[in-house]
Amino acid sequence: MKPLFVVLEGPDASGKSTQLHLVADALAAKGVPVLATREPGGTPLGEHLRDLVLSPNSAMNPLTELLLIIGARHEHVEKVIRPALGEGKWVLCSRYTLSSLAYQGWGRGLDLDLIRHLNQLATGGLEPDYVFLLDLPPGVAYERTRERDRFEGEGLEFFTRVRVGYLELIRSVPRAYVIDATLSQQRVLGEILAHLPLPGI
Amino acid sequence: MKPLFVVLEGPDASGKSTQLHLVADALAAKGVPVLATREPGGTPLGEHLRDLVLSPNSAMNPLTELLLIIGARHEHVEKVIRPALGEGKWVLCSRYTLSSLAYQGWGRGLDLDLIRHLNQLATGGLEPDYVFLLDLPPGVAYERTRERDRFEGEGLEFFTRVRVGYLELIRSVPRAYVIDATLSQQRVLGEILAHLPLPGI
Repeated sequence: MKPLFVVLEGPDASGKSTQLHLVADALAAKGVPVLATREPGGTPLGEHLRDLVLSPNSAMNPLTELLLIIGARHEHVEKVIRPALGEGKWVLCSRYTLSSLAYQGWGRGLDLDLIRHLNQLATGGLEPDYVFLLDLPPGVAYERTRERDRFEGEGLEFFTRVRVGYLELIRSVPRAYVIDATLSQQRVLGEILAHLPLPGI
Repeated sequence: MKPLFVVLEGPDASGKSTQLHLVADALAAKGVPVLATREPGGTPLGEHLRDLVLSPNSAMNPLTELLLIIGARHEHVEKVIRPALGEGKWVLCSRYTLSSLAYQGWGRGLDLDLIRHLNQLATGGLEPDYVFLLDLPPGVAYERTRERDRFEGEGLEFFTRVRVGYLELIRSVPRAYVIDATLSQQRVLGEILAHLPLPGI
């Protein structure tokens, strides 16, 4: 079976990191070789850029933020994701191209076509096989996270725009599923696994 | 008189930094308010990105390199260059948009139209009033700088492509002048000043 590229999307505090590891454990328990990774980050340079982008003390322009995130994505795709898939590993990734469209596009107001163009360049067209949007009401995301990093320091209106963007964007993505992230961790995990073509199920 | 935006281009070791300060001193001696700055860099974030891009230990992809440099340029234009010009200062800058075309385009082989598009986005169309290309034979640039940073660690062929690119690119830039950087510092300075509309000359 061809290894699958699975992306988790959603606001901070929606449980992406937790689910990333729960899904990885469930796959590993079935003998599926798996790599769990995240954006921005995933490479030493990417983690460095992540720190720059998320630092509450940096006040970079939205276009700068986009360019750094896209640069980190390019490194991540070329040095981590493609090689892992090439070795037959499933790749589970927290955030990918949709995050840039939701946050820098719908959230910050940058041109969506520009973001799509840069996403295409950065990924060389590598699309996920499955996308799970861990959806939270903006008020819940906002209350869970406020004032922790640059994004989490944004207001409720920003979170609302990002959520509207996610829900709109995901309609045109194949094999993309919206999961209610207010459910328990085990329920969310169960919903994700129910959609994945796991060996032996 | 409208403050002017003057850019120095050329390979490393062509004397850009030296001339930047000599020209700034000459302007200041005539009572012209002036800001001398450089790319990549020019802002705290930009200097951070400069370190990442130039570190001999980083092995980033060409597109990543371009995105980080363009991001640093955007910050530099919005936070340093435009505000200084707005306050009536002349801005002298070592490297600007042509560097990306010469190094990442002609040198690394990235698409020139993509670089032009990103330059346009990053600068909002802010073009220099004067450009001086401090031209060195590739062999001289190579011998003067080899193995100091990622660019300087490139081979002679890379330096040759960059020089050919610079000479080709500059033909379509208004008020751009090629200066022989093998001349003495004072001769180079004299040539630059001879082209600038200095007050009182």
